Amino acid sequence: VIAGPCSVESEAQFRETALAVKDGGAHMLRGGAFKPRTSPYAFQGLGLHGLQLMKRSAAEVGLPLVTEAMAPDQAASVASFADMLQIGARNMRNEPLLVAAARTGLPVLLKRGMTATVDELLAAAQRVLAAGNPRIVVCERGTRTPEPELRNSVDLVAMLEIKRRSGLPVVVDPSHGTGRTDLVEAVACAAVAAGADGVMVEVHPNPSVALSDGHQSMHLDSFGRFMASVRSVAEAVARWSP
Amino acid sequence: VIAGPCSVESEAQFRETALAVKDGGAHMLRGGAFKPRTSPYAFQGLGLHGLQLMKRSAAEVGLPLVTEAMAPDQAASVASFADMLQIGARNMRNEPLLVAAARTGLPVLLKRGMTATVDELLAAAQRVLAAGNPRIVVCERGTRTPEPELRNSVDLVAMLEIKRRSGLPVVVDPSHGTGRTDLVEAVACAAVAAGADGVMVEVHPNPSVALSDGHQSMHLDSFGRFMASVRSVAEAVARWSP
Amino acid sequence: VIAGPCSVESEAQFRETALAVKDGGAHMLRGGAFKPRTSPYAFQGLGLHGLQLMKRSAAEVGLPLVTEAMAPDQAASVASFADMLQIGARNMRNEPLLVAAARTGLPVLLKRGMTATVDELLAAAQRVLAAGNPRIVVCERGTRTPEPELRNSVDLVAMLEIKRRSGLPVVVDPSHGTGRTDLVEAVACAAVAAGADGVMVEVHPNPSVALSDGHQSMHLDSFGRFMASVRSVAEAVARWSP
Amino acid sequence: VIAGPCSVESEAQFRETALAVKDGGAHMLRGGAFKPRTSPYAFQGLGLHGLQLMKRSAAEVGLPLVTEAMAPDQAASVASFADMLQIGARNMRNEPLLVAAARTGLPVLLKRGMTATVDELLAAAQRVLAAGNPRIVVCERGTRTPEPELRNSVDLVAMLEIKRRSGLPVVVDPSHGTGRTDLVEAVACAAVAAGADGVMVEVHPNPSVALSDGHQSMHLDSFGRFMASVRSVAEAVARWSP
Repeated sequence: VIAGPCSVESEAQFRETALAVKDGGAHMLRGGAFKPRTSPYAFQGLGLHGLQLMKRSAAEVGLPLVTEAMAPDQAASVASFADMLQIGARNMRNEPLLVAAARTGLPVLLKRGMTATVDELLAAAQRVLAAGNPRIVVCERGTRTPEPELRNSVDLVAMLEIKRRSGLPVVVDPSHGTGRTDLVEAVACAAVAAGADGVMVEVHPNPSVALSDGHQSMHLDSFGRFMASVRSVAEAVARWSP
Repeated sequence: VIAGPCSVESEAQFRETALAVKDGGAHMLRGGAFKPRTSPYAFQGLGLHGLQLMKRSAAEVGLPLVTEAMAPDQAASVASFADMLQIGARNMRNEPLLVAAARTGLPVLLKRGMTATVDELLAAAQRVLAAGNPRIVVCERGTRTPEPELRNSVDLVAMLEIKRRSGLPVVVDPSHGTGRTDLVEAVACAAVAAGADGVMVEVHPNPSVALSDGHQSMHLDSFGRFMASVRSVAEAVARWSP
Repeated sequence: VIAGPCSVESEAQFRETALAVKDGGAHMLRGGAFKPRTSPYAFQGLGLHGLQLMKRSAAEVGLPLVTEAMAPDQAASVASFADMLQIGARNMRNEPLLVAAARTGLPVLLKRGMTATVDELLAAAQRVLAAGNPRIVVCERGTRTPEPELRNSVDLVAMLEIKRRSGLPVVVDPSHGTGRTDLVEAVACAAVAAGADGVMVEVHPNPSVALSDGHQSMHLDSFGRFMASVRSVAEAVARWSP
Repeated sequence: VIAGPCSVESEAQFRETALAVKDGGAHMLRGGAFKPRTSPYAFQGLGLHGLQLMKRSAAEVGLPLVTEAMAPDQAASVASFADMLQIGARNMRNEPLLVAAARTGLPVLLKRGMTATVDELLAAAQRVLAAGNPRIVVCERGTRTPEPELRNSVDLVAMLEIKRRSGLPVVVDPSHGTGRTDLVEAVACAAVAAGADGVMVEVHPNPSVALSDGHQSMHLDSFGRFMASVRSVAEAVARWSP
């Protein structure tokens, strides 16, 4: 279980989240400092300062940190603060970025493009591999569906097919994969029941004032219950490792 | 758990399946006598004779039977052999059929059209309701995805939304929802973990010679293991009723 | 050019439309008496009485009439009032209806299902053919697109592929294919430029009070200009037959 | 009309193409030196050397040149050889690249992402604008469709909507928008009939040995006929400017 806020907003916000998810049993921290936003007027992240804040809290609670790099010339500096480098869904086919991320030597968390086929995803993974880095984790984060009010739906069939064809570990992101806080726990449990190797969720001390993704972020207070549900399903399918 | 072959092919085939799924703990039998096939040259089902065979085996094993009617003037006669009437995915918007099915008074298993939105599905349910029949079960059976080699993927987010908006019970069909035998069990477990009220699976004594849907039918020998997995997940999320 | 209202609403409304589109140079009339509507509470059409009204006006202006049958047991009686029988998009895979329509002996206007593949459409055409009726015209009416505010987009590439694989004539419906009156003329011209054998458009004396599809129906006053544009493009690609 | 090969492969290949499309009446040259390819093992382009070759031929025939930059740190050097900078479909949401391209001061040809909504496309255009560059041309290059054998279809309805909402000029790319040489001319004519401000096509002296996109490139010998068809439709809708 990888958990944390969409964006790091302040030291207090990230540290409170880090302490709570560590306490709840999460295995890894997530948080964004450089934010790929559709609108140029949305919050773009704290940048380098955000990376420093996150690294400090991650060290304090003793959890590894995954965060995103958005441009090739950013990869090395982001890598110096992180334990795993995330390639966002909209950058899955950004070849220069894939190569730069690979060359940092860190494990790469490669998010599936919103409408990418399995072949396209595996070609992106091959980019990372061809640049000399075999430490790849794929993240299924939902594809568009016929339903206009539910822009995304986690595609567990694709997840299974990615695992079968590539042998790579796959984590599922039910926060982006549903876009709605009320669906996150159910879909996380479904992913684990289907055989996901992990789940990545957005958690925030106060989603209603989050600077990004508040609508799909879980409240810290719900994290304990969430972990209990996921653990219960994981044990039922014999996939829990504390 | 609703289980049975895609098509009833012979008395021996259906009876063997019925005995095995009853023994494995299924709650209801399924089987098709009138088959909506894309090609006019594919097996079209045994028709009335098939209904008689299925009813006999269902009575013998003591399980209720759900089967499909394809045309308005067929609804009443199909209903006389069944305990629940299925409306197939391609007929979700066939209004005369919805009305005729509703008027039989049997519960209606309404399959979501392959690319129907939640609103369109609920409008179809409203047709049945407006014709005087409130006994409706919705079946999520997969929508098209960006992945060309996986034509369908069960949409658990839509399932949750259908339940939330309508309060209707929803079963998930992982056989059509994946199109591949090797994915059925994982996706059935995912559906149950996410909160599905039931699953419907295709089972056959010998899928390699099935007259329809052999590629997505589970072998009878696998049904026990399948039931154990589904039951284990259902118990983990406290949804099992024997 | 096939033109007429979505639904026949009254003798005056249909006759006024018929006179105007004949005057504008249309080759065939369209109009619906049995309406497949998503909601059970929407206008369902004038039924048999509507067929009689339409036949009278069609005879008066001297144009052939195409109209839709929605159920197998309706096909023969609808056929007795029409020159061509329409199968609606939502019924493209309604096999009993396809067979019943074929057996009337009338030419069949087969609308492509909203998300049907070319193979599925051609399988439906094969149903009609296999029932003994080779007089088939296919109608491309738009498929869903990634754009949520534009639910449909005419798929001219599919139209070309349908023509190439089957040799069947294909007409394009820019009214349903765009869902917006302001886009109908541009898309009709595009269809003709790409090689469509015809276009089918919804026209109404007063779209703002139409009982169905007012948002995509052209005002009668615009029909002359529409015909001039389409004719100009058709002549440019040498496809006009008066 | 913007025409040229997918990739510049040699001075002879590009010069021959440039002379022929100039002779046929094209208004602008296209060609790629840095190629975003799905597979790391596919031809990746001639790079800087390719830019030099293209600039030389463009100057010789007296046509402006549009070519693609793939990474932010590449934008300035690519811009020094080009008259317009292309942002490829897979980079439509690559914000650092959009900003870097905008800052070169050249007009930006922004290709719509393969499954981007109109809102997402306009947000990308807004990125360029917010970075101080209002000279934006949008390119519609096809979206995925339900048809698995036709991965793309030009979406003329979206093109019209983009024009209506933004007022930006829109060109259509029927080469990528169909993926098949035999459909390029028909779809180019359709785009012009619907109101496109331009078309961009891939042309090659010998498509069967092209290092990229041979399946969708027009043979030089067909270019004259192509231009005659496009011009004829453009004149019919009063949109031709020599």
